[in-house]
Amino acid sequence: MWPDRKLLDLIETELPIVQAPMAGASGVEMAAAASAAGGLGSLPCAMLDVATARTQIASVRQQTSNPLNVNFFCHEPAEPDPERDAAWRSRLASYYEEFGLSADTRAPAVNRAPFDEAMCEVVEEFSPEVVSFHFGLPESSLLDRVKVTGCKVFSSATTVAEAKWLSERGCDAIIAQGWEAGGHRGMFLTGDINTQPGTMALVPQVVDAADVPVIAAGGIADGRGIAAAFALGASGVQIGTAYLATPEAIITDLHRDALKSAREDETALTNIFSGRPARGLLNRVMREIGPISQDAPVFPTAGGALAPLKAEAEAKGSGDFSSLWSGQSASLAREVSAGELTRQLAEEALGLMRSLGS
Amino acid sequence: MWPDRKLLDLIETELPIVQAPMAGASGVEMAAAASAAGGLGSLPCAMLDVATARTQIASVRQQTSNPLNVNFFCHEPAEPDPERDAAWRSRLASYYEEFGLSADTRAPAVNRAPFDEAMCEVVEEFSPEVVSFHFGLPESSLLDRVKVTGCKVFSSATTVAEAKWLSERGCDAIIAQGWEAGGHRGMFLTGDINTQPGTMALVPQVVDAADVPVIAAGGIADGRGIAAAFALGASGVQIGTAYLATPEAIITDLHRDALKSAREDETALTNIFSGRPARGLLNRVMREIGPISQDAPVFPTAGGALAPLKAEAEAKGSGDFSSLWSGQSASLAREVSAGELTRQLAEEALGLMRSLGS
Repeated sequence: MWPDRKLLDLIETELPIVQAPMAGASGVEMAAAASAAGGLGSLPCAMLDVATARTQIASVRQQTSNPLNVNFFCHEPAEPDPERDAAWRSRLASYYEEFGLSADTRAPAVNRAPFDEAMCEVVEEFSPEVVSFHFGLPESSLLDRVKVTGCKVFSSATTVAEAKWLSERGCDAIIAQGWEAGGHRGMFLTGDINTQPGTMALVPQVVDAADVPVIAAGGIADGRGIAAAFALGASGVQIGTAYLATPEAIITDLHRDALKSAREDETALTNIFSGRPARGLLNRVMREIGPISQDAPVFPTAGGALAPLKAEAEAKGSGDFSSLWSGQSASLAREVSAGELTRQLAEEALGLMRSLGS
Repeated sequence: MWPDRKLLDLIETELPIVQAPMAGASGVEMAAAASAAGGLGSLPCAMLDVATARTQIASVRQQTSNPLNVNFFCHEPAEPDPERDAAWRSRLASYYEEFGLSADTRAPAVNRAPFDEAMCEVVEEFSPEVVSFHFGLPESSLLDRVKVTGCKVFSSATTVAEAKWLSERGCDAIIAQGWEAGGHRGMFLTGDINTQPGTMALVPQVVDAADVPVIAAGGIADGRGIAAAFALGASGVQIGTAYLATPEAIITDLHRDALKSAREDETALTNIFSGRPARGLLNRVMREIGPISQDAPVFPTAGGALAPLKAEAEAKGSGDFSSLWSGQSASLAREVSAGELTRQLAEEALGLMRSLGS
């Protein structure tokens, strides 16, 4: 049925569809639903503490015995830089004034921690079928321990050079993340967003360069995108934004509503919410101080100073200061459950591939 | 054989492959070869005077009676802006010094003229089967005259909004030009390159919005890309960079050699060579004063001040100051004739689509 079985044979799922791990926007319910439907559900752990990660993995395992992907970030932790933080806060001072907030107002900000010893123990405890990383790979001693559990290791490449780097270090499959993709770009050998290739160019060139299965990501949100990815030589797809329209997405109503009317030319890569480039819907703060700002503190700390503004704006029903992550194909999403979406996408892609060849 | 015949039925070619018009890089021989092979050859006229355009069209017509596309730009002519030009020249002053050139050195620069009354008469004289425009459409009185000749009108859209605009004004087919595409972006309702969608996202959304055949462009350079475009709902493809490796391309050896080793992450959109964003291989001047400069004079005049530097550098075997146009899939190109390339691409795509469905 599927024209390429390399990924299916590797991870032993029924469908070559990876539900993208979306830290802060997806969790247990989405991962369990996607896996139960035959795809590869993904549980993002970058914003969880160890105890919560453990609880959430256990919870998915209770709901389905199908393969599961557990996802981590592996960035270098940020060095404190009080001077840069102060400059960033002064850049935002006029907004604080606008909301009547004093300059020393603080609000809870999301924490994004890199994969470490303690999380490695969680992986060893649960042995998920797949562990995926973003921003490269963890140090080799930790990576070795992950691989010893028998799980398959995935990571994202935004260039052919990154794909080769990952493949040489033992990645079992490469997620080729094109320009169109929403959320954080996995880029780790380059910081230049101007030269980032689109999915149509990236996938075949990664396929030619890598000797492991390639999972296409970026702009894929329906059966057409999946069929196109297979035509380009991919062995599977990773889909994020389309899953944000499912009831399993844990996003604000503001974010959900913004996605419903999002056009393909209303997103941009921005670093102001975290310090690293990530694609989201254009909003006021991105237009006024971004979308890319050289003043933004390093990942993952940039968002801290925005948190009080975000809280005030959201309380008034405005997403002006929120990170509204989205890829460029939000308009192709449909409001069905994550399990139903997974099955519909697969059926559409298979039907379309049959009709292309007839 | 082809899963979608909407474009084929419209233009009556054998193959749904448009050889992209590449002003300054392709001419009579490439257009004639692509058309004779069953594709739609394209003759770029934006940099030709009327007499030369007439001669070149006649020359293609002598070589093949198959359908031909004649391409024009339709930008607003630049208003003289001596202040901005002077500022731009002072921005480049250190390079003039480096080459020992006096500040008033001039060199022949390419001219890019918009479609006008005189060119319209050429169209009326030859009635090419297709006339394609870049940067929107000409004023309605000229467009009406073009359509009266019976030719089909194409233009490029980089967003869904542009596609709708073109479709509402009578375009017979829309070229959906994704982020990956080389050369000048056809964008005309927006100037924001940050929000430009990739081919994978753009094509299906344009297909959903437009009621005319869609031709996918950007990052497509082999049979995989063509099959992917059809999967996305396109009725054909436009391919440029892959044709730059054919002997029919009229590019410098410098440009040809640079394309041979070009990686997918070594291009960027730049406005410094013309005043409008166009994708080319990163080189010294793009890195040092671009790739986007707010100081660049408006299209099409920005390149004039670079012309003496380009001439000096090229005489020394360097492409440091040349516009080395390229899309993001140069590495997928092959060195065969334009006719052979056209046939190989079609065969590959058809074979791949058969295998996807079996």
